[in-house]
Order: sequence, then C-alpha cells, then structure tokens
Amino acid sequence: MVNVTYQNQNIKQESLKYTGKAKTVYTTNDPDILWVHYLDQATALNGKVKETITGKGALNSEISHLLFDYLTRKGIENHYLKKISATDELVTALDIIPIEVVSRNYASGHFVSKYAVTPMTKLEPLVQEFYFKSDALDDPFINDSQILALNLATSEELAQLRRVSQDVNQLLHALFEQIGIGLVDFKLEFGRTATGDLRLADELSPDNMRLIDTLSGKSLDKDIFRQHSGDVTVGYRDVLNRLQQVI
Amino acid sequence: MVNVTYQNQNIKQESLKYTGKAKTVYTTNDPDILWVHYLDQATALNGKVKETITGKGALNSEISHLLFDYLTRKGIENHYLKKISATDELVTALDIIPIEVVSRNYASGHFVSKYAVTPMTKLEPLVQEFYFKSDALDDPFINDSQILALNLATSEELAQLRRVSQDVNQLLHALFEQIGIGLVDFKLEFGRTATGDLRLADELSPDNMRLIDTLSGKSLDKDIFRQHSGDVTVGYRDVLNRLQQVI
Repeated sequence: MVNVTYQNQNIKQESLKYTGKAKTVYTTNDPDILWVHYLDQATALNGKVKETITGKGALNSEISHLLFDYLTRKGIENHYLKKISATDELVTALDIIPIEVVSRNYASGHFVSKYAVTPMTKLEPLVQEFYFKSDALDDPFINDSQILALNLATSEELAQLRRVSQDVNQLLHALFEQIGIGLVDFKLEFGRTATGDLRLADELSPDNMRLIDTLSGKSLDKDIFRQHSGDVTVGYRDVLNRLQQVI
Repeated sequence: MVNVTYQNQNIKQESLKYTGKAKTVYTTNDPDILWVHYLDQATALNGKVKETITGKGALNSEISHLLFDYLTRKGIENHYLKKISATDELVTALDIIPIEVVSRNYASGHFVSKYAVTPMTKLEPLVQEFYFKSDALDDPFINDSQILALNLATSEELAQLRRVSQDVNQLLHALFEQIGIGLVDFKLEFGRTATGDLRLADELSPDNMRLIDTLSGKSLDKDIFRQHSGDVTVGYRDVLNRLQQVI
C-alpha cells in the first residue's frame, strides 16, 4: 500500500524521512502530510537493545489511534489525521521541538534511583521533566534556562508544553482509571505548524507510558520488555481491549 | 585557638558538626553561631580524589572573607559574621537548603559535553541549574517540579534562589571584570534563618567558581587541580592579590 485517499485527495507515500526506534516516517506528495508506519520492533537503553516482536506495530498503531481520537474530542490539538491501515497513519508535518516532556504521577524507573525515592510514591505536584532529544547525547535532562540559552524553544512554548502535558495527564489519568489502569508516567513530544502553533505529536502508546494494572500492580507497558518479564504484546493487547470498552 | 570575642560575647568552639570537602564546621556555645575552619585540602570528582595543598585554606578563607564583605555592602544578605584567624570564621547557623545553585555565564565543564556546546559560548539568558545536595546520590541535577514533589524547598524559595543568584552574578561579574578576570560559572548554597528568611551561605572562593584570566584565558580556579595543570595556590593567590587591589 503506497497511496490512500484523504479528504478527497490522493496521498502517495514518497521518500523515507526518518527511521525511529519503532516507526518509520515517509514524506508524501502533500508537503503538509507525513505517512507513519509502525514497526514490529522494540528497543531499550536508547536503542542499544533491539528485538522484533510480531504484532506490536499494529497494537501500538491502534492504541495511539484511539488515544489521539479521544484527546481530539477533548480539545487537545494534535498532529493525528487518519488511520489508513492496521499499522499506518497520516499525520500533519510539523517542525518537531527537540524536547521530550516527561510527566510523572508516581515515582518509577530512573527517578527512583536518581533521587532515592520509594517506588510508586505519589508525586505532588505532578513532576514534569524536559529532555533534549539527541541520540548522540543520550537525551540529556535539561532545564528551562538551558533550553532558552541553547535556543531550543521559547519561554512561551515551554509554558505551553507544561500546560498541555498537564491537560493530557488529567484526561488520560481519568480515562485509564475507568478501566483499572494506573498512569504512572509518560512522555510526549510536540511540534510547530507552519504558522508556529503548537501541536501534540509522536505516538501515544505503552512504548511511551508506564501503565500498571491497578489491582495486581503488574506492568502493562514497555517495562515488560525492559525487564524481560514476559510477552510485551500480552500487556499491550490487554490495554487495547480495555480501551475499546470505553472509547 | 578555641575561643574568640564576637560582639562583646565570648564564643567557644564546641563539637564538630560537619566535615566538608575543604572545611570543617563546629558548633559554639551560641546556638546561632557556627565556627568554620578552612582546610588545606582539595577534592575532585565529588570527593573521590583528595590532596593536601599547603596554604589553600588561608587563601580560600581570605578570598571568601573579601567577597562576602563586598556582597554585604551591596545588600546581599548572607551568613558571614567575622573573620577570626587566617583560616577561621564565624557564621550564622542556618537550616541549609539541600540545593546547590549553579549559574553559568559561559559554557564550560560538563555543560559542554552534556549538551555538545562549544566551550566558552556566551549563555544568554544566564543558565541557572539546581542540584540536589547528596553525596550518596552524587548531587543529581534536579528541576523545580521535582524539588516541590520531594519537598526540598517551596516555589517562593526557588524564585528567591534564582533572583539572589542573579544579583550575586551581576555583582561578582562586574567586580571580577575590573581586575581582568572572567566569571565563567559558580555555585551558591543557601539556608533559612530561625524565622525562615533566606541567606546566602557556604563559601565564595575559586573552589566553587570558574575564573579565567581575561587576557590569557588561563584558569585561576579549581580546574587547575581537576586538570592537574599546575599549582592551585598560584592561581588562587593571583585572584586574591587582584581582589585586594579593588576591595
């Protein structure tokens, strides 16, 4: 499949723009539209560990589709345009801001060891962290004054990144709570439209979130892969099944 | 020497309260006053490398004395009370906030490698970083929301830490400029008085600052020790001699 119809327009997949850890992104005949393909691939330690996991691409694609649709209905502006196959979607081409925004409701992962915090401590207020997106530098933790001095974003954009991430947290936290899932932490990325407006970008999937079953405390996310504790797709499919009941 | 006079009061050195990397701190018969003794010692890599350097204690004590005096005259409230010997001083006992505040005018040290910045790039606006003071955790970099969630300080205190550090930077930057020294970056610590007021604490010396000779670009600070590039006391004595010309 290399072409599809979107808003009565024929969209053709063109050249490979970017190969991510679990996605490939192509340009199309429309400069404002990108074509995203989800891979059956998982990585850990910033790409140093890589594995093929059959079915993961379709699961992430569908979960991301459901969550973007949900956030769109709730008024969160984002890049998602249309699901075009089990593993493919069209999104708005953005100028991606090189900052990952991590929001933490509970202490987990490297936050626990770095600051000697008891795992699953409730974090109030919400912890929000910025990371400079750079594989070569291993995505270093960065603060506002550093971002401004390095010209990575404006202070107005940083305020917006915080505000939108907080809104997304409230919406997703409430949504997952309905289906017995705890949203521990998650990572978002953002981009600018041609007119400079901020849009939520990237994917919304258990690759970028820590999700636990509220009753058992069991991981339903990429920690299954990071910790070699079982079949990732079982956790991801569970998340998808539960989401389909409420979205 | 174990007792001195301060404001017509006899102050006696009592028990050891704390051994730092280059200082020892004692309680006194006055619970509001601490006795600080500067050691002839240098450390690097968070204490992993340690060396005795004759004369360093007296140099740091005198430089710190001059700089605190200068800042006091300029209205920066601080813990410094009185110099009582070549290597000893009295300071106000404070509840130390476990946050180091680093201010950077130019890119240097680990900032350069962490963010792939050209050394000595002018940083505008001033870069300000918080580190969680914890030898066990290796003083991890920390941001505002993490500090609030971990209850290390209030948001009002963080705003004050930033404001006072910025004021100190302006004052010291201008002072050093007069004597041909560039203030590259520096670390400050703060504490709360019994009534909760914020005061600048710790020492103000080339142990906590990067200083370069403006003409030659040569280090005059602890980088001489870190990089094994010469006798630390030569650089420190140069800084002291130049300061004595203007303070």
